[in-house]
Amino acid sequence: MFTFEILKSDESTDARLGKMTTAHGVVDTPAFMPVATQATVKSLSSEEIQDLGFEIIIVNAYHMYLRPGHRTVEKLGGLHKFMSWNKPIATDSGGYQVFSLSKTRKIKNEGILFRSHLDGSEHLFTPAKCIEIQEALGVDIMMCLDECPPYPSTEEYMKKSVELTTRWAKLSKESKSRTDNSLFGIVQGGVFDELREKSAGELTEIGFDGYAVGGLGIGEDQEKTYEITESTLFRLPKDKPRYLMGLGKPEDIVTAVSMGVDMFDCVIPTRNARNGTLFTSNGKLVIKNAQFAQDGRPIEEGCECYTCRIFSRAYLRHLYIAKETLVLRLLTLHNLFFYSELMKGIRDSIDSGDFPNFLTRVQSLGGK
Amino acid sequence: MFTFEILKSDESTDARLGKMTTAHGVVDTPAFMPVATQATVKSLSSEEIQDLGFEIIIVNAYHMYLRPGHRTVEKLGGLHKFMSWNKPIATDSGGYQVFSLSKTRKIKNEGILFRSHLDGSEHLFTPAKCIEIQEALGVDIMMCLDECPPYPSTEEYMKKSVELTTRWAKLSKESKSRTDNSLFGIVQGGVFDELREKSAGELTEIGFDGYAVGGLGIGEDQEKTYEITESTLFRLPKDKPRYLMGLGKPEDIVTAVSMGVDMFDCVIPTRNARNGTLFTSNGKLVIKNAQFAQDGRPIEEGCECYTCRIFSRAYLRHLYIAKETLVLRLLTLHNLFFYSELMKGIRDSIDSGDFPNFLTRVQSLGGK
Repeated sequence: MFTFEILKSDESTDARLGKMTTAHGVVDTPAFMPVATQATVKSLSSEEIQDLGFEIIIVNAYHMYLRPGHRTVEKLGGLHKFMSWNKPIATDSGGYQVFSLSKTRKIKNEGILFRSHLDGSEHLFTPAKCIEIQEALGVDIMMCLDECPPYPSTEEYMKKSVELTTRWAKLSKESKSRTDNSLFGIVQGGVFDELREKSAGELTEIGFDGYAVGGLGIGEDQEKTYEITESTLFRLPKDKPRYLMGLGKPEDIVTAVSMGVDMFDCVIPTRNARNGTLFTSNGKLVIKNAQFAQDGRPIEEGCECYTCRIFSRAYLRHLYIAKETLVLRLLTLHNLFFYSELMKGIRDSIDSGDFPNFLTRVQSLGGK
Repeated sequence: MFTFEILKSDESTDARLGKMTTAHGVVDTPAFMPVATQATVKSLSSEEIQDLGFEIIIVNAYHMYLRPGHRTVEKLGGLHKFMSWNKPIATDSGGYQVFSLSKTRKIKNEGILFRSHLDGSEHLFTPAKCIEIQEALGVDIMMCLDECPPYPSTEEYMKKSVELTTRWAKLSKESKSRTDNSLFGIVQGGVFDELREKSAGELTEIGFDGYAVGGLGIGEDQEKTYEITESTLFRLPKDKPRYLMGLGKPEDIVTAVSMGVDMFDCVIPTRNARNGTLFTSNGKLVIKNAQFAQDGRPIEEGCECYTCRIFSRAYLRHLYIAKETLVLRLLTLHNLFFYSELMKGIRDSIDSGDFPNFLTRVQSLGGK
């Protein structure tokens, strides 16, 4: 059911234009997956995400498992029906959420024992359990349970962790029972190049539908992130989709695309929007600033998003200052539209041979 | 510019079907005005309010004055442009908000001295000032500054208050400088029938484009509310629109329509939605209840609102429990759709002669 095809490769970088086919439709790559943490991209309906041009979203299996429960979602006809989204869905296995949300967790040979961040109840995520959850949700792309150790971790710890992640990856694959979905392995190894090599090699040997690079963007400096991403990608099969987990400033995305990454997910556009920080092609704009109080212009002149077509900076600032929830939606629509256009720009420029210029232009906005 | 026409009168009640014409278009009456407190009906865009079928909204002049400021809105092209709503807008003068929001206020002969609930700054609302604010906003229906004394108040206090409100109403009318808008007087007098009579008589003598019944629904029992509404309406000109301020449970609306009320505003549908309480034709539904956790049905079977066409009770309950802001919008859309249908039902039944049956049906839902 799951296929990946490379349509075109950039001549001077490792960027590639691709097409991923799933049971719920096609995804043009490089693709950005808006994060629908709890089965909604915060403040938006599924229809709005689709209207923005996104072809795939990512949901948190950890959250769905705890609330409303994967069996509940299954009984209601699966996650697609539950949230009224008919296009592809990816889920992470929950390993990262256990790392970031659960205060008490214990890594054991058979899995991760943790306490729910909601009610403190104890749960065990095994590789098989995580597949069971994701299959019950009925998603198109599942992720293997992995351990995501904090940064910094010692090389010794990380070595054991990679061994565990490999073992779990194998068990994950063995647990998979449906044929209408796909399973990605997650490369770990922290900032240790040799361990990344080992992890990538072992996962490739097991064989997955796609490969994710995990455990980055958690505290290491950006140069290291890029270096590890590049060396890891080099060791992954070229004919499978590669997914850089959790990283997604615009300059990160174009840079990673130039290294051969096909898929992204990141809370930056949506979280920034809720904090009132907006992306524009001239850099960021902070809507609550007093300078916008009487500014009748849209967030960005010429932007064709719903918000910019209709509302002024002054109105948006007013809503933001007055804590009106409408503003969360309007700002999120703008930022995700920006990301949707960014990804279209990436794909179009790879297609037309102009990607290196596009890359330089977006990179030059970094930090602005 | 402002006209009101009665198209049909019910034979067995005082209900009437009307048409109010303003500079920004026509309003079919009886009409419900969603409350856009701070220039947004909480969680909804102006486009959504229009799509729901509403022809007029009410905004709080008090809030607009304090934030973002009526002069700011004026500079930005007026309130219609500011919030991107091209149909009629009514504003209250601010008297009620001063009563309900400001802890320190002093009623003086020339106006109301109060402290902002936002920053404690001191402000004086005079009748002229309130007209100035509302004219700067550029709204279609303005209200005179009135005093809204708390319930209960003594007859002696209320008598003075009515005298003040009459004096202010006169000054309000004298301050009006635009011809493209309209001004309504507000009948006060608490639960004292003679004072209501006095107030209605004096306002009618001054002469307004429409008349509001204020100071009800603030603690007196429901029978009293209905009794005072009915006797007050009896003393108001039949050929002008009558607006019952702030009252709006469905059974209140139909009952007041049967007495001859043409306009309503109320936060109940929107506030209830945000609290997870939904109107249906079988009574209320509380979405957070555990019984809906696995309920795949819409809020109301057969309801054609956006939310009911697309989402299940189980999904809405999940969003509500998970505190996802999307749910505020989805539930508000449902409740306002219910109100929009209610008003259509009222108008259609007056038109077809079936209003008495409609009245009984809706009244029988009271309290459910």
